[in-house]
Amino acid sequence: MKDKWSRPMRIACIVDALVNQPYRVFSLGDFADYLKVARSTVSEDVAMVRETFERTTSAVVETLPGASGGVRLKPRPSPEQMRSITETLISDLQDPNRILPGGFLYMTDIIFSPSWSEVIGTYFSHLFGTLKPDYVVTIETKGIPLALMTARDLDRPLVLIRRNSRVTEGSSVSINYVSGSSSRIQTMSLPRRALSPGSSVVVIDDFMRGGGTVKGARDLLAEFEVEVLAVGVVAVTRSPRNKLVQDYESLAEVTFSSGGRNVEVRSTAHTV
Amino acid sequence: MKDKWSRPMRIACIVDALVNQPYRVFSLGDFADYLKVARSTVSEDVAMVRETFERTTSAVVETLPGASGGVRLKPRPSPEQMRSITETLISDLQDPNRILPGGFLYMTDIIFSPSWSEVIGTYFSHLFGTLKPDYVVTIETKGIPLALMTARDLDRPLVLIRRNSRVTEGSSVSINYVSGSSSRIQTMSLPRRALSPGSSVVVIDDFMRGGGTVKGARDLLAEFEVEVLAVGVVAVTRSPRNKLVQDYESLAEVTFSSGGRNVEVRSTAHTV
Repeated sequence: MKDKWSRPMRIACIVDALVNQPYRVFSLGDFADYLKVARSTVSEDVAMVRETFERTTSAVVETLPGASGGVRLKPRPSPEQMRSITETLISDLQDPNRILPGGFLYMTDIIFSPSWSEVIGTYFSHLFGTLKPDYVVTIETKGIPLALMTARDLDRPLVLIRRNSRVTEGSSVSINYVSGSSSRIQTMSLPRRALSPGSSVVVIDDFMRGGGTVKGARDLLAEFEVEVLAVGVVAVTRSPRNKLVQDYESLAEVTFSSGGRNVEVRSTAHTV
Repeated sequence: MKDKWSRPMRIACIVDALVNQPYRVFSLGDFADYLKVARSTVSEDVAMVRETFERTTSAVVETLPGASGGVRLKPRPSPEQMRSITETLISDLQDPNRILPGGFLYMTDIIFSPSWSEVIGTYFSHLFGTLKPDYVVTIETKGIPLALMTARDLDRPLVLIRRNSRVTEGSSVSINYVSGSSSRIQTMSLPRRALSPGSSVVVIDDFMRGGGTVKGARDLLAEFEVEVLAVGVVAVTRSPRNKLVQDYESLAEVTFSSGGRNVEVRSTAHTV
């Protein structure tokens, strides 16, 4: 193309690329080639993009030095935004219509809403981004949207632990585990080819009561010699106090009262 | 804030908003308020954003007239990009290591990769966007990432049909159906509160052989008086030729040969 790109148009291109693939490193040289300008011009454009995001505070634009350097965008909800998001989530979860028999909360509409799962994914990816996991792992079924969005923001593959091994996934490793809440023996399995031995992961799930599922996932991942760097769960019930796993991060703690007729939810989110 | 936003910075803000939430309509007035400039200035900025995307051809910026009007971005992979994406997908699926006993292909790594699921979601959202469904529906488990990304691009909630009803989702409607490939009777269910009667949906899934699962989903959705506007599946096996559903869109057709030792994959994608 003969026409030059004006600065506003170059900036539109750069923002489009960065926002579309957060956390991915883009080389300034690639931008310079595509936009047909000098690297120094791209540097100035990127500086202006960085300044814009410093104002909107919706993301941080990082410049990585060196030959393999470049620029990337990290979504960064401001503490105020994150607090407002958490407050909305919590007041939404407080709704007594969400209470289900047996000490559960109906959360499927939230977890499967693309906008909520994006926000929660951004939260966990921000919380766990510095750990540099090789994979994001979740356990079938309802953690999948949250884990996918976390994986997307971290630019890592998502790995799914199944409740049963499936013919469509080849040979698998399975373990039996005891569900923390129901004390029943259950199975979970992971295809052999799903991840490389010696890698590291973060585990994301939607809901935790006894912690048996997450403990099962840890045990299964140990069979692959995989290190679990962190566990992130959206909502955790206050009871039982002694979970089968101790180390986890959550967004909300749920307490049932009046024999399960009332529910109280409080934020356990960090300021990220 | 006292400082004015320069045009490049305003454009960075507008692109950030549009790209972050494709298909969502943003009012020019909201941009004008946030950026503290006249609506006519925002109009000029948006025109420049539109011109940029006309050049990159990665998306279309639409201006909607009228009082409730505004601007929105529709991702639009160019025919060349879409063809290249489909070709990569197909050559990847051709790998004989993917063949599993019983006429299945290992596809989990593709479906659960955030970048693949985003691309496939963009494809289906583009193909089905004009149908204006109220929800995107998928059937547990492996369609979830693709359906979530489709739902995100269409700005619609995702609804999940479960293989069994769960205590964590309240009262459900269940049906029994016959799996098209295994001829076994299976169950699928949907919580009563998952969607409103009289609404319309598109169904997204990863793999189809006999079509029994999609037919089951159709029958279950009929119980909710929900209209299925379209069905999108990533890979469909050539055999059996007579599927239990006729009307579906796919990206790839899979043919096994030499008694299931070889696999051939051909593109069935539309040019969108």
